[in-house]
Amino acid sequence: MAVNSPLPIASELKPVAGVEIGFAEAGIKKPNRKDVLVMKLAPSATVSGVFTLNRFCAAPVQIAKAHLAAAKTSGKPIAALLVNTGNANAGTGELGLSLANETCVALAAQLGVDAAQILPFSTGVILEPLPAAKVIAGLPQAIAGLKADNWYNAAEAIMTTDTQPKAGSRTVTIGGHSVTMTGISKGAGMIKPNMATMLGYLALDAKVAQPVLDELVRHAANHSFNCITIDGDTSTNDSFMLIATGAGALEITSVEQPEYAQLRDAVTELSLFLAQAIVRDGEGATKFMSIIVEEGGSVEECRKIAYSIGHSPLVKTAFFASDPNLGRILAAIGYAGVDDLDVSKLNLYLDDVWVAKNGGRNPDYKEEDGQRVMKQAEITVRVKLARGAATATVYTCDLSHDYVSINADYRS
Amino acid sequence: MAVNSPLPIASELKPVAGVEIGFAEAGIKKPNRKDVLVMKLAPSATVSGVFTLNRFCAAPVQIAKAHLAAAKTSGKPIAALLVNTGNANAGTGELGLSLANETCVALAAQLGVDAAQILPFSTGVILEPLPAAKVIAGLPQAIAGLKADNWYNAAEAIMTTDTQPKAGSRTVTIGGHSVTMTGISKGAGMIKPNMATMLGYLALDAKVAQPVLDELVRHAANHSFNCITIDGDTSTNDSFMLIATGAGALEITSVEQPEYAQLRDAVTELSLFLAQAIVRDGEGATKFMSIIVEEGGSVEECRKIAYSIGHSPLVKTAFFASDPNLGRILAAIGYAGVDDLDVSKLNLYLDDVWVAKNGGRNPDYKEEDGQRVMKQAEITVRVKLARGAATATVYTCDLSHDYVSINADYRS
Repeated sequence: MAVNSPLPIASELKPVAGVEIGFAEAGIKKPNRKDVLVMKLAPSATVSGVFTLNRFCAAPVQIAKAHLAAAKTSGKPIAALLVNTGNANAGTGELGLSLANETCVALAAQLGVDAAQILPFSTGVILEPLPAAKVIAGLPQAIAGLKADNWYNAAEAIMTTDTQPKAGSRTVTIGGHSVTMTGISKGAGMIKPNMATMLGYLALDAKVAQPVLDELVRHAANHSFNCITIDGDTSTNDSFMLIATGAGALEITSVEQPEYAQLRDAVTELSLFLAQAIVRDGEGATKFMSIIVEEGGSVEECRKIAYSIGHSPLVKTAFFASDPNLGRILAAIGYAGVDDLDVSKLNLYLDDVWVAKNGGRNPDYKEEDGQRVMKQAEITVRVKLARGAATATVYTCDLSHDYVSINADYRS
Repeated sequence: MAVNSPLPIASELKPVAGVEIGFAEAGIKKPNRKDVLVMKLAPSATVSGVFTLNRFCAAPVQIAKAHLAAAKTSGKPIAALLVNTGNANAGTGELGLSLANETCVALAAQLGVDAAQILPFSTGVILEPLPAAKVIAGLPQAIAGLKADNWYNAAEAIMTTDTQPKAGSRTVTIGGHSVTMTGISKGAGMIKPNMATMLGYLALDAKVAQPVLDELVRHAANHSFNCITIDGDTSTNDSFMLIATGAGALEITSVEQPEYAQLRDAVTELSLFLAQAIVRDGEGATKFMSIIVEEGGSVEECRKIAYSIGHSPLVKTAFFASDPNLGRILAAIGYAGVDDLDVSKLNLYLDDVWVAKNGGRNPDYKEEDGQRVMKQAEITVRVKLARGAATATVYTCDLSHDYVSINADYRS
């Protein structure tokens, strides 16, 4: 049950000129389930991405990074993205690279492009060989079904333990030109992205120069997917891809161009929506928490403290129980690794309730006020460090019985 | 239900000459429960301790550190330890310091010593004022009951969510002298000690010079309490105290003395026993895992990887389910923060089963072999990094439904 996350409405997801989407039910893990996705791009498209920093980064991640780099110099742009669910193709060594490459070769042949113009992505179980033959067998069905108005199906096709698809569209006017953007994301466990989330794709129909897009994707990821955590487990397959199809009228060639900031903010807002949707649908989630750490000496220390709170199993179970056992938050702040933190200046708020004042219990704090906030489905934890002007926000969910059930049963 | 951890037998816990123990049922949190402990020491005793690095370290921890430092210069040795459960006196600001001090003053008066000769300890709920009056009211009962043969009651008196007391005794012969040592520990959640565990006390009847004892307690903690994790939450109150009563014949004045190494190894062995007892009784634990990382470039990087595995909720739920979903271990290794790790050389074993070979699935690995090991109550995870000769071991337990239940209900 996702927290305050209504199902996307298919008719409200806007096609992005320059992107066509097809899918297949290839039977990779379970029958009768969309598990292969092809996103075909216009030749005018630029693509940029950020990927997991996990040292066990999956074979498709390694290949996608290589193909993105090659596209920048070869003059042959990325032509399609290929995603499979049901198998992560991670922890699979040389064989994994070879199998991922086979799928690229097969799709490239059917689209009449080079294999290096295909970006592969996988999500699912780690340490098991990719059933490449099944992926390849699904490609004709996916290609036959390619169409622009297919984003809802795309969101469904990348789901694993997600309970609902995650997708959103925006139309913004920038420099007098209308820009349409649509994105999808997936992920519910093994979520503590480090440069990106499990899988996120966002396409827009402006023309954006490659260096600008590279900058834009980093900015958007740092303010969205890199601010969420469900269980602190950074995946082997995290990838967030930003596609500018070039099919629209807006063209951005430099980050100095006034329109850049507007596009950046719009892309970041949609990215944050998609990232939050992952937390709202976190495995077993019953609560959505925004953890805001303010008045820090640096963004880095604010993030350390916010993640320390967001990862604490004790904090997360207290939220699950709606129990204002808020000393657990202080403990998590204390072990966050900010070695010179003066806790005697620290203040803690739960929504509008001032819980801890100058490092101790606020004399005016009443248990029933904490209780009132803890019962809500959405809660803001605000920590004021009194050390400076930096701030950071992390989004997370609670730790429930269902998290244990889902992850104890995931493969069975 | 603790994992392979038989109840200590009271008659097997040996008195340590120079230590007398008394307790009270002071009604701090619940009625009819031992919740105040007094350990009275012979004037010949030296005491050394290690404490939590949590910045929100509790009021009693701050006072205990100050009193230990004072005892080194004042010529007035530590005379007694005072422990209460039911309230951690952490996150309590100036008031907390004042209340902890009041309890020291009260006990000191009854023992005819200075307040600075008392070490206070608290464990329980954070962010709530210490009911100092109740602790003080319990002191006469505790003092009246002081006796040497009382370690089992001591182990019971420091329990919170522990399902069973944790205690052990050893007698060793060093340099022709018999040394008796007995220790107790407690803790079941908020366990990822950083310098010490929730609460551990170990007394021995040799005479050990203060600088030697200081070195010894650090060594023992680093090889025992600092190697365990249940939920990655470093407590505000962690304290491990080593007491050398000086009542026995053995005297150690320097770490260069040949007997030192023997005593160090014996103390470390008993400390590890007490630390492992905490993990075996981890909240909701059904499995006990030893995570051994070998062939590392440094102990630090081995510890990073071992803790990354030991903290991963996904790894821990897989162990709970006896599911050999071992890719999760690779993912945890990959995000441990060892940035130049070459995963293509890495090998992973589950007990005697070779799971991952050179970074990918071992072609000879069979699911049923992994399944066989995963069903055991005790499992060794062994990671070989092929980077050097360093090694580190971390002990942890699984993440079960009961962990969530216990921590969702703890205060109610």
